[in-house]
Amino acid sequence: MNTWITLYTLGIGGFLRRVENLKRDVAIISVGSTRFGEHWDKGIKDLVWEAGIQAVEEAGISGRDIQYIVFGNMSGGMFEGQEHVGALVADFLGLNPVPATRVEAACASGGVAFLHGYMAVASGLYDLVVVGGVEKMTDVESVQATEILSAAMDYEWEAYFGATFPGVYALMAMRYMHQYGLKPETLAKVAVKNHYHGSMNPLAHFRNRITVEDVLSSPIVAYPLRRNDCCPVSDGAACVILAPLDEAKKYTDTPVKVEAVAQASDTLSLLERRDICTLDATVYAAEKAFAKAGLERKDIDIVEVHDCFTIAEILALEDLGFCRKGEGFKLYEEGETYVGGKLPVNTDGGLKAGGHAVGATGIKQIVEIVKQLRGEAEGGRQVDGAEVGLAHNVGGSGATAVVTILSRR
Amino acid sequence: MNTWITLYTLGIGGFLRRVENLKRDVAIISVGSTRFGEHWDKGIKDLVWEAGIQAVEEAGISGRDIQYIVFGNMSGGMFEGQEHVGALVADFLGLNPVPATRVEAACASGGVAFLHGYMAVASGLYDLVVVGGVEKMTDVESVQATEILSAAMDYEWEAYFGATFPGVYALMAMRYMHQYGLKPETLAKVAVKNHYHGSMNPLAHFRNRITVEDVLSSPIVAYPLRRNDCCPVSDGAACVILAPLDEAKKYTDTPVKVEAVAQASDTLSLLERRDICTLDATVYAAEKAFAKAGLERKDIDIVEVHDCFTIAEILALEDLGFCRKGEGFKLYEEGETYVGGKLPVNTDGGLKAGGHAVGATGIKQIVEIVKQLRGEAEGGRQVDGAEVGLAHNVGGSGATAVVTILSRR
Repeated sequence: MNTWITLYTLGIGGFLRRVENLKRDVAIISVGSTRFGEHWDKGIKDLVWEAGIQAVEEAGISGRDIQYIVFGNMSGGMFEGQEHVGALVADFLGLNPVPATRVEAACASGGVAFLHGYMAVASGLYDLVVVGGVEKMTDVESVQATEILSAAMDYEWEAYFGATFPGVYALMAMRYMHQYGLKPETLAKVAVKNHYHGSMNPLAHFRNRITVEDVLSSPIVAYPLRRNDCCPVSDGAACVILAPLDEAKKYTDTPVKVEAVAQASDTLSLLERRDICTLDATVYAAEKAFAKAGLERKDIDIVEVHDCFTIAEILALEDLGFCRKGEGFKLYEEGETYVGGKLPVNTDGGLKAGGHAVGATGIKQIVEIVKQLRGEAEGGRQVDGAEVGLAHNVGGSGATAVVTILSRR
Repeated sequence: MNTWITLYTLGIGGFLRRVENLKRDVAIISVGSTRFGEHWDKGIKDLVWEAGIQAVEEAGISGRDIQYIVFGNMSGGMFEGQEHVGALVADFLGLNPVPATRVEAACASGGVAFLHGYMAVASGLYDLVVVGGVEKMTDVESVQATEILSAAMDYEWEAYFGATFPGVYALMAMRYMHQYGLKPETLAKVAVKNHYHGSMNPLAHFRNRITVEDVLSSPIVAYPLRRNDCCPVSDGAACVILAPLDEAKKYTDTPVKVEAVAQASDTLSLLERRDICTLDATVYAAEKAFAKAGLERKDIDIVEVHDCFTIAEILALEDLGFCRKGEGFKLYEEGETYVGGKLPVNTDGGLKAGGHAVGATGIKQIVEIVKQLRGEAEGGRQVDGAEVGLAHNVGGSGATAVVTILSRR
């Protein structure tokens, strides 16, 4: 872990001092996830229960073995009138008095929860930890959902003036198109690819395949982003159970090792950024994660990135270092990001087709990578021989980013 | 730390397995707090800045020395349209790209944030960590504030049917009065004492002294609770900086050692509890904390408990083990909980007079104990020779409880 620490320290201008090693490696021993979509018959509790019980059963443990619970949730308060979601999970899974905490970092709530759970095990504090995420979004009108999601931006400097997330990402897209020559036709290919992948994933929100023409003829939300450039508003929950790596074989034949998790922050508002086409938090988190894992970009077999809008997927691949700034969209001109391509991206359909239950998304990405590394991805979307995967979860327009690297090594 | 772990394991029926030791002891090296009250001219950012800068200056460090930020906030979303408060703190304190996370456990958000910061340092992961809490509550009508706070209960089984927090605590109070013979006159003495203490605290929301008659003649909110049995809705922020104990003297001559922090959960709704006059989460958290600290109740010189309503202070003293169930109110008949008494409780005025900016309250309590242990409590409220203090922070009606023991040893 020393490399990681060194990089972490140097990578952000030397202002983070010495940080000691964590005690031990961590593995994911089981996963669970609801379908993402419109669950009219389910509330937060039902979603958590469905995902949680899958993970507990898959690990072959009893709920009584669990020592700690961390759940990501962006806004149970505004969506459902329900805060205090950590305790709610412990309550509804029958796990009282186990300590249970909700963490929130907007759409990166799941990724941050994963980091907290990872620390709890890696530090030696707890052995068996449930990490999850949940969001119930469809009990409000979609206009209201957009308004609620705006709470992830800087309220005083963005949301108050009427900015919405499609609007903010449209600003990024416009600047990017101007600067690097991206065309809407190429942007559309991100959505086409993600719907294609989603069509093979039984847990995806949208399973229909679409064409470039479908995207370009869908209504404009915030130019250049059209309805088919935007991810849906979804209900869903996902969770994983973590254990020390050296004990993981007790629970599963196919443990997945957590090679690295790294989090970084940036300004909430775009106006303070050095470049609105770059998510610096992603850049920092990726540098830290690769250094800690001791891996290079070419070692990554599959990637789950935070494609809340089509432009976000292109920015992510650049900021993660898979290609240079301004060249990400070229990967889409030749189909390299499909299953079977050089770098399969969002094999579960991503946020666009897989769905975006905001607090659960960071965990859903990890669930997909675990399935791929185990060779268990159904429907024809399995990437042959996948050994190392990366998940990238963003909060807001990039004020939080979490990068996680997993392997079956 | 072994004792703590053992107790933790046994104390809750043996269903928590082995948990390893943390690496090192932790100290509080500095504190900062705004006044709690109605800050019409300040938003979340301004409150965080005011408390944060005090703590950074008192520690004599630069913001660039900070490695991690954890902030408690209950509902920036519903109060202010602002979620993503962790990243907001990093942004507004100029600390990007330092990882920054918001944790939430309703009114125990501050206490849970303190636990997370403690783990980050105790595990050896980070050296200098800022832990804080903030809530900006007065930009909404007070009826709306009550509605927002209801999100800390079980929405489906309590809030949906119109339950409010005064209502829920009134149920507890009615049951307690029936079972143990508590009279409203004695309940009123809790508020009288806390206003007396608050009158000596320049940071308190209310600094007026009141009488038992004032309480008994104030309007009924939910019988037997009257307006003067209820804490106010406050704006405020508080924070502390944590460092490894063995390095704390580099930053301060008066480090305060964190002897223990423990968290437990319970059902959100009252209807599932074995006894609505007992907060089991407090009982469990207290047992763990005392065992870890290797201390007994008689070793505690000052206590800050979560007196969101007068009845809550009485329940807290019982559940923390300072007296038997059903006997807590007798402490108030003889004035033992005043500064100068046998067990001074809520020397800063508690939530009742000190104020209750929900996400900040758990940290505000810790700030008061630090000041007392340093001998720096102004206004005549200093407890002579205070060496060990305990803070008790509750989320909702007891679904989360955090108990922290601090010493100047």
